[in-house]
Amino acid sequence: MTDTRYDVVAIGNAIVDIIGRCDDAFLAANGAPKGHMRLVDAETSAALYAKMGPSIEISGGSAANTMAGVASFGGRAAFIGKIAADEFGRIFRHDIKAAGVAFETEAVTGKAPTSRSLILVTPDGERTMNTYLGISTDLDHGEVREDMIRDAGIVYLEGYLFDRPEAKAAFRQAVTIAKAAGRRVALTLSDSFCVERHRAEFLGLIRGGVDILFANESEITSLYETESFETAAHRTAQDTPLAALTRSGKGSVILDRGATIAIPVDPVAKVVDTTGAGDLYAAGFLYGVARGLPLDTAGRLGSIAAAEIISHIGARPEMPLAALARSKGLAI
Amino acid sequence: MTDTRYDVVAIGNAIVDIIGRCDDAFLAANGAPKGHMRLVDAETSAALYAKMGPSIEISGGSAANTMAGVASFGGRAAFIGKIAADEFGRIFRHDIKAAGVAFETEAVTGKAPTSRSLILVTPDGERTMNTYLGISTDLDHGEVREDMIRDAGIVYLEGYLFDRPEAKAAFRQAVTIAKAAGRRVALTLSDSFCVERHRAEFLGLIRGGVDILFANESEITSLYETESFETAAHRTAQDTPLAALTRSGKGSVILDRGATIAIPVDPVAKVVDTTGAGDLYAAGFLYGVARGLPLDTAGRLGSIAAAEIISHIGARPEMPLAALARSKGLAI
Repeated sequence: MTDTRYDVVAIGNAIVDIIGRCDDAFLAANGAPKGHMRLVDAETSAALYAKMGPSIEISGGSAANTMAGVASFGGRAAFIGKIAADEFGRIFRHDIKAAGVAFETEAVTGKAPTSRSLILVTPDGERTMNTYLGISTDLDHGEVREDMIRDAGIVYLEGYLFDRPEAKAAFRQAVTIAKAAGRRVALTLSDSFCVERHRAEFLGLIRGGVDILFANESEITSLYETESFETAAHRTAQDTPLAALTRSGKGSVILDRGATIAIPVDPVAKVVDTTGAGDLYAAGFLYGVARGLPLDTAGRLGSIAAAEIISHIGARPEMPLAALARSKGLAI
Repeated sequence: MTDTRYDVVAIGNAIVDIIGRCDDAFLAANGAPKGHMRLVDAETSAALYAKMGPSIEISGGSAANTMAGVASFGGRAAFIGKIAADEFGRIFRHDIKAAGVAFETEAVTGKAPTSRSLILVTPDGERTMNTYLGISTDLDHGEVREDMIRDAGIVYLEGYLFDRPEAKAAFRQAVTIAKAAGRRVALTLSDSFCVERHRAEFLGLIRGGVDILFANESEITSLYETESFETAAHRTAQDTPLAALTRSGKGSVILDRGATIAIPVDPVAKVVDTTGAGDLYAAGFLYGVARGLPLDTAGRLGSIAAAEIISHIGARPEMPLAALARSKGLAI
């Protein structure tokens, strides 16, 4: 820890979430695949917004949510992601900095607007995302600050960024910098549709140097093109030294050089909105790993953070996660 | 009802709320009077925003919240208020229309931005508002659509608008139109600081033609410069035919031509955020009065709507209020 400025630095899409409620019929009528993220263009985004009900705006972005979570545990976190010099960009910058995360990426003027995701939450609490990638995918190697990567124990990469070639190059550059500095590389697969689009490249990246892999059940089975979670987990253990695989209500599984640790979910009275569940699980796990805690503790921190985030609207923690973890008897 | 297009049309500030959490010390350190609304300039707003924690953005504005509530009860509501052609203006328009409220005021380009209120919620759930009035106070008689006023059973005026002379003129014009069409005029005093600033003019307006007055305890005692709620209520009954006076946890009192009806609060498991409590009480009461329901029922609808709104973040209802009222045995 002593030779780093940050426990974790993340590279991802800087996004403001626009969250509203709808029923399953609305999703079907608008071609939104339930429980997934689909990319939409500016026109589709505007048309869907006009049709959707009243909503709230709240900073999001998968890896950005994870960094807000790491900071909430008391970790030292930084985020690299692109915003425009517009109202949503100002909101994003304010919120991530107010969450205690270092964020120094410059805002861009006169190109695409800040990215936004229309998130539709159904009565069962499931979220379905319709993301208009504005400026955030313009991220290229220019923004990947070498000093920030070098100075962080772990660099965390968001799979969603794979949807643009420039961002892939930025990822590879970040991996090279991290490896040269003796740091660890973590990756989240983000979404099973995203895995479908980039399977070969994800596999290449994982086998080529990912130290910590995050995926949920549908992502990991998609990656290995199998219907069996056990098969996918077995393949994962062959390809990467450490992985945390989440299974929604069934808890998560940590794969540590062949050994398997099962982590239970943290109980929740009512699932209000699942937005950010995976992001916050990653926050707890990354914090635990960065601080050298036992892996079962790291997994428990993930479960606790995920439970907090699904008990309310939005993907940023509403209470200090360090205090929450301590109240549950964890020594962090 | 048959000769109207709307049950209620409201004139007020169109505002987007930026809601975050803080402790009492933060309020004190930043000169924000707890539980009140203070007006701040653009510079103070920016400086406070930079200091405050992560926040969420959600459409607000006192009378606009009330109209969203009327619509949620199944009422026909319209809103008149000024927005700029910017991101917050687009959010405001989307949300009020998605709530089922008619809103036809044109957005203004190239002047002040859409108004916003930095709302700080303390651990006790109390909200303290720091409002930067951008374009919304530019409302003048040009925007007061004569046809909308004439076609509504009740015109509802937001006291906050009294902070600009042009808006006062718009109010007087709306009263004249409503009276000529045989409609009723309702007024909310909005805030005790606001009452301090405009006491004489509020009294003139009330005595000169307000049919339904809304105020909370601190506003009504400020209006009549007394420390006794009973004295203030007595004076109110002399000045206006119908009034609903809210007393937070102590419920509300309806003054109907000398008669007094006490309305209990609707119980809430946990007060999360009091933003909009008065606005939503007014929604229930206005809906009841507009539909000719008994006044004690109208008061109960106010209590039910207020209880819903303080049980979550933000001042717009999260569930259909008509269904909520029916689930509590009210025939509406």
